[in-house]
Parts: sequence; C-alpha cells; structure tokens
Amino acid sequence: MLPVEIIRKKRDGKKLTKDEISLFINGYLNGTIPDYQMSAFLMAIYFQGMDFEETICLTEIMLNSGHVVDLSDISGIKVDKHSTGGVGDKVSLILAPIVASAGVPVPMISGRGLGHTGGTLDKLESIPGFKTNLSIEEYKKVISEIGVVMIGQTSEIAPADKKIYALRDVTATVESIPLISASIMSKKLAEGIDALVLDVKTGQGAFMSEYEKSLQLAQTLFTIGKNFGKKVIAFITDMNQPLGYAVGNWLEVVESVQCLRGLNVPDLMHLTYVLAGAMIMLGGKANSIEEGMKIAQKVVLSGEAYEKFIKLVEKQGGDVSYIENLEKYPLPKHSIEVKSIFDGYVYEIDALEVGIVSVMLGAGRTKVDDVIDPKAGIVLRKKVGDKVEAGEPLAIFYTDKDDVIKIAKERLSKAFKIKPEKPELPKLIKTIIDNEGIRDWK
Amino acid sequence: MLPVEIIRKKRDGKKLTKDEISLFINGYLNGTIPDYQMSAFLMAIYFQGMDFEETICLTEIMLNSGHVVDLSDISGIKVDKHSTGGVGDKVSLILAPIVASAGVPVPMISGRGLGHTGGTLDKLESIPGFKTNLSIEEYKKVISEIGVVMIGQTSEIAPADKKIYALRDVTATVESIPLISASIMSKKLAEGIDALVLDVKTGQGAFMSEYEKSLQLAQTLFTIGKNFGKKVIAFITDMNQPLGYAVGNWLEVVESVQCLRGLNVPDLMHLTYVLAGAMIMLGGKANSIEEGMKIAQKVVLSGEAYEKFIKLVEKQGGDVSYIENLEKYPLPKHSIEVKSIFDGYVYEIDALEVGIVSVMLGAGRTKVDDVIDPKAGIVLRKKVGDKVEAGEPLAIFYTDKDDVIKIAKERLSKAFKIKPEKPELPKLIKTIIDNEGIRDWK
Repeated sequence: MLPVEIIRKKRDGKKLTKDEISLFINGYLNGTIPDYQMSAFLMAIYFQGMDFEETICLTEIMLNSGHVVDLSDISGIKVDKHSTGGVGDKVSLILAPIVASAGVPVPMISGRGLGHTGGTLDKLESIPGFKTNLSIEEYKKVISEIGVVMIGQTSEIAPADKKIYALRDVTATVESIPLISASIMSKKLAEGIDALVLDVKTGQGAFMSEYEKSLQLAQTLFTIGKNFGKKVIAFITDMNQPLGYAVGNWLEVVESVQCLRGLNVPDLMHLTYVLAGAMIMLGGKANSIEEGMKIAQKVVLSGEAYEKFIKLVEKQGGDVSYIENLEKYPLPKHSIEVKSIFDGYVYEIDALEVGIVSVMLGAGRTKVDDVIDPKAGIVLRKKVGDKVEAGEPLAIFYTDKDDVIKIAKERLSKAFKIKPEKPELPKLIKTIIDNEGIRDWK
Repeated sequence: MLPVEIIRKKRDGKKLTKDEISLFINGYLNGTIPDYQMSAFLMAIYFQGMDFEETICLTEIMLNSGHVVDLSDISGIKVDKHSTGGVGDKVSLILAPIVASAGVPVPMISGRGLGHTGGTLDKLESIPGFKTNLSIEEYKKVISEIGVVMIGQTSEIAPADKKIYALRDVTATVESIPLISASIMSKKLAEGIDALVLDVKTGQGAFMSEYEKSLQLAQTLFTIGKNFGKKVIAFITDMNQPLGYAVGNWLEVVESVQCLRGLNVPDLMHLTYVLAGAMIMLGGKANSIEEGMKIAQKVVLSGEAYEKFIKLVEKQGGDVSYIENLEKYPLPKHSIEVKSIFDGYVYEIDALEVGIVSVMLGAGRTKVDDVIDPKAGIVLRKKVGDKVEAGEPLAIFYTDKDDVIKIAKERLSKAFKIKPEKPELPKLIKTIIDNEGIRDWK
C-alpha cells in the first residue's frame, strides 16, 4: 500500500491495520516517508481519531523504534508516575525520593516544559551541576545503587516519538488523544517499569481543559498500560489553580525541598501522598493506597525521603550545598509584589494565566531553543479559599527582565478573582481508574 | 501570526482572513513555509472546508502568484470551457474549433490525464508533432491568427497552484471543493478569458460521484467566476457511462475528427452542441443557447469547424497528414474483442472501471513520470440502452502490453451490466446554473 493510500484511508475514517501504521511510522523514521506526508497523516488522525487497538499498535511501533531498557536484574517492582502537565506541578521531585525510600525502585524519564506548563527536567537542571542526560548504562547504575533516577528522553528511547513530536509541534497536531497517549506511553514503557501511576490533569491550566476529554485520555493511557502487561492506576486531578505555591524552576525545587523536610503545603502534599500511596501499593510494599500513604508520610517525617533526594542530586552530579543551603542560590534582579485591591476571598486563580506569565518572566520557552532562567517565576501568597485584604500581597514574581514587569503585574493581578463570599474549595483528586473500574475518588 | 497558528485556526473551523491565506500561500511559494506545514494546512481545509469568501481569496492569491494573460488587444469576447474530468470526454477537441468557427475566440489552457480520467493535453499530444508547451507570446499569436489555441499550464500561470497541486496529489488532499475550485479557477482566470462555460461531471466516472457534491462544486466555481467579473454558465452532466465510444488518447482524436467531419455520436455531440451553444451565446454571437446550438451545427455541417481544427493542428506544429488520413497512425500490438455472454440490453457501463482499464492498457499514468501510449485504449461497441446478443462484441481494446490482456478482458466484461429489460436512458445534462439560478436542464 502506498503512503498516500494510508493517509486517505485514515482521512476517510477507516481503521488502519498494524502493518499500515508500521509502514508509515517506520518509513518516516528511516526517511522513505517525507515530513509532508507524515504531517497530513497526523492531521487526518487529529480529525478521525484512532480506536484503542490502533493506538496500542502505534504505541508499540514507537516503543520498538528504539531501545527498551531491561531492568530485570534490579530487584523489586519498578514503578513510575507520569503527569500530563500542569502549572506548579513539582510532584515528581518530592514523590520519587519518597517512593524510593519506601523500598520501591523509581526509574523516571521526564520531559521539558511545554507551552505554559513546566517540565521536571528543567526543574532538576536548575540545581547547579545536575545532569539529566545520562546514558542508559549510567541510568541503570544510579537506580541499582540508590533506587531512584531521573533523566530525559535519550536518542535511544522511542526515536520515532521524538521525530514525530517535533513535527506535531509545528503543524498544530499536538492536541490529539491517540497521538498524546502513544507519545507518553512509548516513552514510559521504554523505561523498564513494571507499574505506572498516571496523573491526568483537567481544568484551565491543563492541556485537556474539559473533564470529558481528560477522562478519555486517562482511559486510553490506562488501557495501553494494561495491554502491555503493566500494573496501572490513573487519577484525574484538578488543574484550575497552580499546585502548591511556587511556579518556576528553582522556586519549585525550593518548595519541594521544604516539603521533603516536612513542610505541609496542603494541596501539593495531599496529591503527592495519594500518588505515592498508589505507587507504594503497586510496588508491593503496601496492601492499599491508604497504607502506602502512611508509609509515605513516615519516610518524610523520618527524614529518609529528604536524604534520598540529597543522594539523587549527588549521584547525578548536582551541587548538594545549594539544596542544604537554599539561600546560597543567586537572586533574580527583580522581585515584585502583586497586591490585592479588594477585600474578600480568593475565588479563582487562573492557572493558565499564571503559567503564561511565568513563561514571560523567563521560566519557560516560547521556542525550542529559548534559554530558561532558572531563578524566574512566581510564588503565590494566597490560594483559592484564602481570605485577603486590600493591599495584602497575592503573589510575588521574580525575573531578570525589565520589559515584562508591567504586563506581568497586570496579568497576574487579573488571574486572581476576589469575591466577597468564600468559595467552595475545588476537589483536587476527582477520579480514580484501576482494575475495579472508574469511580470518584473519596 | 505564525504559520502553525493559521493551521490551528483552520483546524478549529474558524474563518481565515485574506492576509492569513496570503501569508500561507505566498510563504509556501517563496519557501518560508515548508511542505510539511502546507500539507497539514491542506488536510485541515479538507476537513473544515472554506466558505465562498475564503475560496475567492485563495483563488485570487493563487491567480496573482503568476502571470495573468492580457488578451484585450484581441477583439471579441473570449470564452473557454472547463470540464472537471471524465472518461471518454473529448468534448474540448470538437468544441473549441466549432466555437472559434462561430467567431468566438477560444483561449484554452488544459490539463493532463489524472487518475482514471483523460486529459486534453495528452490527447492533443497523440497527434505527431503537436506542441502544447507554447510560450505566452506564441499563445497570444495563435489565438489572434486563428481564434483558437490549446496549451498546457506554463510555469508562469498560477505557479502557487502548480506547487500546491503536486503536494495534494501525494497527501490525499485532492478531493476538497474549495481546493479544487481555487485550483481550476486560478488557471482559467489567468488565460485572459471574458466568459467561461463549466461542465461539472457527476456519477461513478467523475471525481465527485454524488450529485450533491457536484452541485456544490458547480456553485462554487460559478460564484468565483462571477466574483471576478466573468460571464459564467455551469452545467452538471452525467458521467456514469463513458462519453461517446472511444477512451484513449489517439482513439479519442479519431472520434473527434469523425464528429468534426459530421458523424453524429449522440451523447457526445448532444453535450458538445449544448456547451458550444452556451459559449457562442456568452461570446455575443447568439441570443440564446438554442440559437448558439444551431450555429454550432451549421459550422460542423459546412466543414468550417473541421477546417479550423486542421488549422489549429498546423499552427501548433502537428502533422496534419495524420488527421487527414487517420489510418496512417501506427497500429497497437493487440486489438482484443470483449464479447457479451448474455442476451439482453446494456443496463450500465461502469465509467470508473473503463477508465481504470484504459490506464492499465497504457492510456494513462499511475505515477507522474509514467509514459503514455497514445495508441492504447478502448472503443465501446455498445452503449447503455443498446440491445445485445450473446457473442456480440461489447468493446474492443488496444494495447502493446502482453501482461494486462487477461485482467483487462475480465474487468471490461464486468463493467457492462446486461439485463433482460431495456433501461431508462440516463439524462445526460442534468442541471444548468446561470444568472437566473439553478434549474433542471430541459
């Protein structure tokens, strides 16, 4: 079958066979299918979708386009977590050391910031010296020694995904559930994991703002994982306001370190403990998520999780002195307060706006080759439900750039909606999907 | 606005501005927008469509990407005809000399065969020596001298269309009404015409097999033409069985020459006279289509139209001796009869199948660089409604290829549906669209 006939078949809403998907993806990777046919194919998928079977085929072909890491000589059930991306979502930094401290190995391959959302890699790299570009051999060595490792997608991992992703970004074909799912899962399945906990975000600050779409994405990811013989639990969680207080790379490292030292940031640590509980259970170290959550809390209070993080930083070349002495970090040129002009309650904080402003301040990229300023970002002073008086600070932002201060102040101020009445607090964890089905999280 | 944002806007079903369409088309032509963004854009248009206003903008931008021929120093109202393509459709070859003989100048830029349908250029080039690649200067010279000229799309005419068309062909984005319309009309408007008669085909053998789609295409073409200040009449005509008897390049020249000499092939000449009547009326030489039809019949019977064709062949470098003595042409290696195995009436002749078989025999291309065998093709012996006895020939096919005979025999035989009862004859000309609106053709 010619490539153009495969494009036409998908364009006309027909189901593709595994051979057809393979011909297209592998042909693209080896250069026999040009960019322009791939982008037409991606747009046809955007409109016509793919069913579970096609999406699983696509995942498998992208997975097998590269190296699948074998961690079978490392004992224990290897568990990872993946989040679909949000604003202020630094959970991985806190979670991975916790779960590893509970005796469950965590091999983690993460991504960079995308659009208005941050990326774990960029956060880790804000720690002076921290290396995320380990080879597969180094990756295996670190996890076997300390039970946790956090790296980026190497050229050996799902190269078809890497090549296709770059094309999707410039052809408006990112927002497609089968394409997103195959992209995420081909990378995660290449890590060498046995189990996976998924955190699918929903709301203004998420890539899928509608709940129904988020649910569809969660179900697709769950189904793919199960199909590849992995243990999977998926959560759908709220991303209407930023998670925790800090948004920006080093700022989020600071908040994570404080949490690992025992600070309780309610929404951030609630989500972290639930995800950790699920991972510890899947890793065979607890009989329920609740039991896993108790273990997680214990390793934080005992200092073990913090010690694990220190070891991780050390092993991956980071300068631990910055973690042990957070004030050592260079200061940004500007730190500007955004004050409330009303009395009342914080009713809403637009996570998308906060994310966009943080990118403007220097914390994210608008083009692939933009350089990130690790110091830049925002620290919220109020969260949804908090009482606020006129003149009180809502947030502080940090930047080296002079020309964005005015607009950042305006947009951040507008991102906070203040009302006289106290709002109902949003439910952070909405839904769980596991072997027993889909249901509300209690 | 970035190209990716324009793609996204169309993908999301929003209306594009003229500036956005221009940025995309001109950016593609000058190389700042790559193939892969254009193909994603085309696929988004395939799914989301374009309204009349966007389609007109697209046409204008493609038209102005090249040279617009000025024929104002040639007296008379210049009229052309365009057909959306069918099987056995050699109308242009008969029509152009007829209309020119009636005193209406016919400047015609035609295309090559596409898929299962033939192209006027390939038919003309089957005449030894006939040149279709005249320069714009030669084109103007020929029409000023003899009132008719027939050439192909030069690199000066609508180069944006030429570049985009090549991409559409390999990315499954051909079958889109706004893209088809802008492609046709940008070329036709560049010819220097004052008026245009459109023959939009419908049925199995047409690119738009459903009547509703054909109507939509006819309306779009009509609206664009009017919008550019041209006189336009559009017809929707049946393409369920091949037009006339001959399918294949030289075979169609032969049938055309015979018709110009006075042979009456009923469906072919009926359509030719109606289209000619409309052109002669638009050209100001008749007050109605009917009056124009009478003039057309007169110039055929008087031999003037045939003489005009001889002059055209001569002027464009063709060897007239082949036209004057049709038997002089080389014979194909094989001529094979396909016989009926039933008694009854021809109920249906699948034009698509006949077109596909003719391509297999060598009369068309499956790839852009395929070489056409001008001698190859099919001559039907029976048409829909004809009585047939078992053993009587339904068609004869001609080819130099040994390896296609068996399959061609089988498929051609199946393309004829024979039933005991006489069918109702299909209505050849279904609909007319002119300034008075859309209505059934009487």
